[in-house]
Amino acid sequence: MRWFEDFEVGSSTDIGPVTVTEDEIVAFAQQYDPQPFHIDPEAAKDSPFGGLIASGWHTAALFMGMFVRAILLDSASLGSPGIEELRWTAPVRPGDTLTGRTTITDAQPSQTNPGRGTIFTTNEVLNQNGEVVMRFKARGFFARRPA
Amino acid sequence: MRWFEDFEVGSSTDIGPVTVTEDEIVAFAQQYDPQPFHIDPEAAKDSPFGGLIASGWHTAALFMGMFVRAILLDSASLGSPGIEELRWTAPVRPGDTLTGRTTITDAQPSQTNPGRGTIFTTNEVLNQNGEVVMRFKARGFFARRPA
Repeated sequence: MRWFEDFEVGSSTDIGPVTVTEDEIVAFAQQYDPQPFHIDPEAAKDSPFGGLIASGWHTAALFMGMFVRAILLDSASLGSPGIEELRWTAPVRPGDTLTGRTTITDAQPSQTNPGRGTIFTTNEVLNQNGEVVMRFKARGFFARRPA
Repeated sequence: MRWFEDFEVGSSTDIGPVTVTEDEIVAFAQQYDPQPFHIDPEAAKDSPFGGLIASGWHTAALFMGMFVRAILLDSASLGSPGIEELRWTAPVRPGDTLTGRTTITDAQPSQTNPGRGTIFTTNEVLNQNGEVVMRFKARGFFARRPA
């Protein structure tokens, strides 16, 4: 069980992999991002992307699935207040296999709540060719180790 | 059909609503964010949130669904390079009805590609009580109106 004190500033963790199928790309986008280049393979051929690509929010969700299973489920996670500087830097296509890398950049005890602290991270999602497809900074709240 | 030139800086648009069920909260989170307070109503009672809450990425996806259906499907959208300063400011719970508000803050023609430009927005997601549950800044690429 990882508490706030167990996150080491400067450390990196590789997470995943996860492979995304065309069916999953289309199903996610039909509900949450039904732009033609996310749901219609034929229309996508005529888009600037030259074929079907995953919604950027889907890529974010795929990262989160890897991050939760690798790190948060075995931690004293108390949720997240937000993220910074999210960039979608390359398309994610059907059949791509994604991995993640998360680096701890800072750890700050709460000024107002002695039971928690904030962990700051930078995060990357990469495809099977080593291209970064998404990156962002995040914060997470974690409970402090009981005395 | 809205082209880059048709987005008016300073204008706001209300979008939605969408109501989120417990089943949808749990289904999204089982795949993409399986923390106990997103997937297990009993465990969630003992969490700091006092009950089941939606994944923040699910709230973002719900906003995107409203935004695409209200604005992007009838536009020359060319995707998005990223977002800034995303904040989850209040929990989203089963049965909540969400709406969105998007405000155009800037419009910049591309310096390198005469066929496109970037639209800058600030965005809020509100619940049925008028509480802001999420806010963020975004950029989107749009094709310029053909001559």
